[in-house]
Formats: sequence, structure tokens, C-alpha cells
Amino acid sequence: MGQNAFNDTFLKACRKEAVPYTPVWYMRQAGRYQPEYREIRKKYSFFEINENPEVCAEVTRLPVEQLGVDAAILFADIMTPLQPIGVEVDMVSGKGPMIRNPIRSLADVERLHSIHPEQSLPFIGETIQLLREQLSVPLIGFAGAPFTLSSYLIEGGPSKDYHKTKGFMYARPKEWQALMDKLADVTVEYLLYQIRSGAQAVQVFDSWVGSVGAEDYEQYIAPTMTKIFTALKQTGIPTIYFGSGTAHLLNIWNGLPVDVLSIDWRISIDEVRALGIEKSVQGNLDPSMLLAPWELLKNKVTAILDQGCKQPGYIFNLGHGVFPEASVETLQRLTQFIHDYTKK
Amino acid sequence: MGQNAFNDTFLKACRKEAVPYTPVWYMRQAGRYQPEYREIRKKYSFFEINENPEVCAEVTRLPVEQLGVDAAILFADIMTPLQPIGVEVDMVSGKGPMIRNPIRSLADVERLHSIHPEQSLPFIGETIQLLREQLSVPLIGFAGAPFTLSSYLIEGGPSKDYHKTKGFMYARPKEWQALMDKLADVTVEYLLYQIRSGAQAVQVFDSWVGSVGAEDYEQYIAPTMTKIFTALKQTGIPTIYFGSGTAHLLNIWNGLPVDVLSIDWRISIDEVRALGIEKSVQGNLDPSMLLAPWELLKNKVTAILDQGCKQPGYIFNLGHGVFPEASVETLQRLTQFIHDYTKK
Repeated sequence: MGQNAFNDTFLKACRKEAVPYTPVWYMRQAGRYQPEYREIRKKYSFFEINENPEVCAEVTRLPVEQLGVDAAILFADIMTPLQPIGVEVDMVSGKGPMIRNPIRSLADVERLHSIHPEQSLPFIGETIQLLREQLSVPLIGFAGAPFTLSSYLIEGGPSKDYHKTKGFMYARPKEWQALMDKLADVTVEYLLYQIRSGAQAVQVFDSWVGSVGAEDYEQYIAPTMTKIFTALKQTGIPTIYFGSGTAHLLNIWNGLPVDVLSIDWRISIDEVRALGIEKSVQGNLDPSMLLAPWELLKNKVTAILDQGCKQPGYIFNLGHGVFPEASVETLQRLTQFIHDYTKK
Repeated sequence: MGQNAFNDTFLKACRKEAVPYTPVWYMRQAGRYQPEYREIRKKYSFFEINENPEVCAEVTRLPVEQLGVDAAILFADIMTPLQPIGVEVDMVSGKGPMIRNPIRSLADVERLHSIHPEQSLPFIGETIQLLREQLSVPLIGFAGAPFTLSSYLIEGGPSKDYHKTKGFMYARPKEWQALMDKLADVTVEYLLYQIRSGAQAVQVFDSWVGSVGAEDYEQYIAPTMTKIFTALKQTGIPTIYFGSGTAHLLNIWNGLPVDVLSIDWRISIDEVRALGIEKSVQGNLDPSMLLAPWELLKNKVTAILDQGCKQPGYIFNLGHGVFPEASVETLQRLTQFIHDYTKK
């Protein structure tokens, strides 16, 4: 633990406890918008950073120190736990993760190994342990959700439509379930390992699940998510579920054994509460607003905070990740504003 | 007009009149999923097809004859009217339209010319005239909507997040409005030209506008769409507005002077009607379902039709375009099933 008193505002908000001010962190708060990160990336590849605990901890810590946010999130990629199970991934700059051996059949699914994270991902545990010594804010662990992971595995890389993924889901329900089961195991084992190593909350990223209709989500995906969050619940660690464009899924999400729902700007927090959702809520500024003039940004954020603060259990975040064109100064000013505006 | 009696089912549904069965057509019904189209594309580039009325009419007619759909849609790209106003576009296979001179400033906006479609796009008028002689179903003209067009112009090509586009919108409201005004003029002039040439309905494609929150849509985009649909209303020709992931915008869309709202699978037709929307509705099968086994597809389509047919003003379509992996046989069978199932 760091020299400062530990700031547990974020954890309290996850648990719907009273907080002295609204906690804030930003998805992809470590990334290319930071000059320091760009410098480090000149020396190391993405995976080299990830596999070097000293450097990975530095990259994870950087936005906490720079922006004053109330939580750190482990620097890693949702692909990180897939390599040890036999997925060949290349991170292609400007394109994203590309898969050399996409899933096409049951044999492809069965070829994926189980995960033994202590053995295959020792650097993740070491990074987390190091960060727990260094940080005075909670450390969030994370993993990709099975649908979103499967979209890369089946499409072979990023996609705009996910036709192959959903086509596989519809046409091969047995193979689909085998893949969901395998990826659920990976997600659970990987997150339990992060929690054992010291992660104080975990976020499950289902970035692309908003492409699925509500009935299909209920049938093909919800049982897997129930399994994952049920397994995590035993740890007592707060869990967060994130997706973009998921307003149509929130009624179903509300029935999952997860603590916090992370929403985007396509639905307001008032609308979420009007659905009868009492869970903690995280969100929901459109990250594009980081390019807006300060007055406009401030007005938008004020409106979000006024809605979010109506009841306990609110964490400020973006509706999706920070992007390279954003500025450190804007995020610093934004964080300060949120703290000042919501201070009791 | 063709030798068969003219089939005006689609136009009647646009106008909420009684129909003998549910009309159906498919967005991107002319395209790479057709072996005949792939053969033609071996001989001609996309733009060569577009600029050759005989070939363009053939490509437009092909799905009507092959699938038995109730409407044809002009084969063109939403970029087609941008080249004459000074935008340099390359169609890059597997990537989409790439812009050589992206919009960065007011000077860039002012540099765009007005459109004189009779002079600069004579092939569009000729194709439409030819098709009206050949077709026995209505011909739908179309154009891109200003937000979606601007997303290509500002990002320089396809995007997943539209940060630059929305950043421009927030940070440069004057330039944004100038761009919206210019693109609204292009859209209106181009569609009026298509209508003068013989188009019997028009669809405005705002494919990516679902990335914008409701308040921002109301402020930055709705006035432009009102202007466009008001200008088109004078023609008496049915107008359709399409976007994907726009459930959160439908209350605003309902206030626009447009006849038909084209929706996707993220909202059900029952939910649309529950919002109080009385306009005609078009949609909303997830195109990924075209890869599903027939029984699953049939059940999903039956549920959609049962909702759609509850009141007049329903057109079957996908929630987004047909894609290369779809099969002609599935679309044929689907069209036949929809006609048979809904026949009075």
C-alpha cells in the first residue's frame, strides 16, 4: 500500500455505500493519449509491457498519478488469457488483435486448452502484487466476456457486424455452447487468479455484445454470464459488467448476479433507474465529448452527475474507452471537476 | 413498365394502406452474395457499374428477378453524389470508401461545390429511366444522410467510434452546421433528381447515426433531417429513414416528417408500437440470422411478421444489409415464406 491513506471511494460506490464524492476512473486510462505511454511503447511491444511486471505496473499506475482517478485498472488486453489456451494472436497496430487460427469447428473448440494462470501468466500475478504495494487506490482486474472473446476467435479479428460469430451461434448451438463453456472457464479462472493475487474489483468487458438482440442474448449468452458472476460472487469482490450499445439488454443484465452495470451514452442514468435497476451504475459520458470545448463538456458531465448522484451506487466513467486523440489535460480537469462538484 | 401487372404492395405499405401480403425487400439485395454479381464485378469496378446504365440496371434488377422481392433499390453507393461536389473517394475492397481529402476546417467545407445532378450524374437518371421501363415493382432511390456522409468525410473512411466526427460536431458547431447544410442540399437535390427521373420511393441511409446520444441527435442532427424530409414531402413520394442501433432515437424520429422508420433487431416492432409510433415500420431481422438453420430462421421471421402485421404500414426487411456470406437460396426461400405466411 502507498504512503497516502487508502482511497476506497470506488469500492464503496460498487457496494452502494455512502461516499464523500463520486469516484471516477476511465476505461483505457492507460494508453496512447499519454505522451509517457507512447514513449514506453517505443521501447516495448504491447505484449512486452504486459509480461514485464515493473513496466506493466508503471503503465497501470501512470494515469492514477497523472489524472487523480479513484481506481487503477490492470494494464492488459482481453486477449491476454487466450494465448495460454492455444490461440495465436498478433496485435496489429491500427487494426487490433488478429487471430491466426480462427474457430471453425468443434475440433477447434476442443483444441483450446484449459488455463492454469499461475503457470502460464505468472507476470499478471506479479504485476498485481507489485501494484498493491504501490497503489493507494483500488486495483481493478479484468477479463473479456465469452461473447466478445468469441467474436475475435470466430471472425479472426475485429468486426463491424459479427455475422460469422452470430451465424456460428445460430447454426452450431452445440459448438457454440462448448465454446462459451470453455471461455467461461478461462474468464473465471483468470479472474479468480487476479483476485487471489490482489485485485480488489473485477470488470468483465463484453464490448460487442450490444450487437445481439435481447431474445438471443437471453438464450445464447445470459446462462454463461450467470455462471461467471455466480463463480465470482463467492469471493466477495465487487464485479462490474460492461458493454456498449446495450440499453436493450439492461433488463436482462439486471437479473445477473453482478454488482455494477457499466452503461454508455445511448441511455441516461435516469432511464436506467426508471427500468427499476437498483444495482450500482457506472458511466456514461460519450468519450467523443473529450474533444468538446470545456464549457460544453462541463455541462454534459454536470447533467450526468446530477442523475448519477440521486442514489448511492454511482461511479463516473466513460461509455467506452479513452482514445488516442484525447488529452491528458482534459482528463485531469474533468477528474478534478467531478470530485469538486460532488464533494459532500 | 414490365410485362407483368405492376406490383404496388410496397408503396401501399409505405402509405399504411391495406396490402394483399407483406411486401419485402432487402437492403444491399444486389451484392457480393450473388454469383452473378461477382461475375459482373470481375469485368467492372464498382464505379464502372454505377456509371453504365445498362449494367447498373441489370445489377439492380437481378435480385428482383432472383428473389421475388417487392421493390428494387437503385444500385449505387452513398458516396456517389459526393464525387461531383469535390470529394475524392477510393472504394477499397475489404475496407470501404476512403477519402483522400478529409474535412478538417470551414475552408474544407466551403470548398465543396453545389450539386447539379443532371449534369454530373446523368447515368443515375438514365439508369432509373431504364429501370422504370423494365421493372414491374417500385424502384427505391436512396441517398446517405448528412451525419453518416460526414462521418466518412471527417474520419477519412469507415470508423468504429466516430470520435473525430462527433469531436468536430462538438468543437466546431459553425463548421458542423455549414457541413450539415451543404450535405442536406446535396441529399435533397440528389433525391429530387432521382424522383424526377422516376424513383417511386426514397430511403435515406443514416447507417451510423446510432452512435449519437438522443440529446445530441436532437441538437446537432434533427433540424437537418427535418429540412430534408420537409423538402421531399412536396413530391408526395414515400420516404424511409434508416439507421442501425437507433432504438434510443425513435421518439425523435417519430417527430420527423418522414413516412417509414426502418429499425433493427435491437428493438422489437411491438416495442416500437408501444412508444406510440404510428408511422409505417420497416425491418427488422438480424441479417446474421441468414446463416441460421431454416427452422430457426422461420420461427424468428414468424414472430417478426406476427408483430409487424398487427396494423397496416409494415414492410419486411433486414435490420442492416445482406452480406457476402449469405446465400441466394435462403433469401429466395425467405421471401416466398413471407409472402405465403402473410397472404390474406
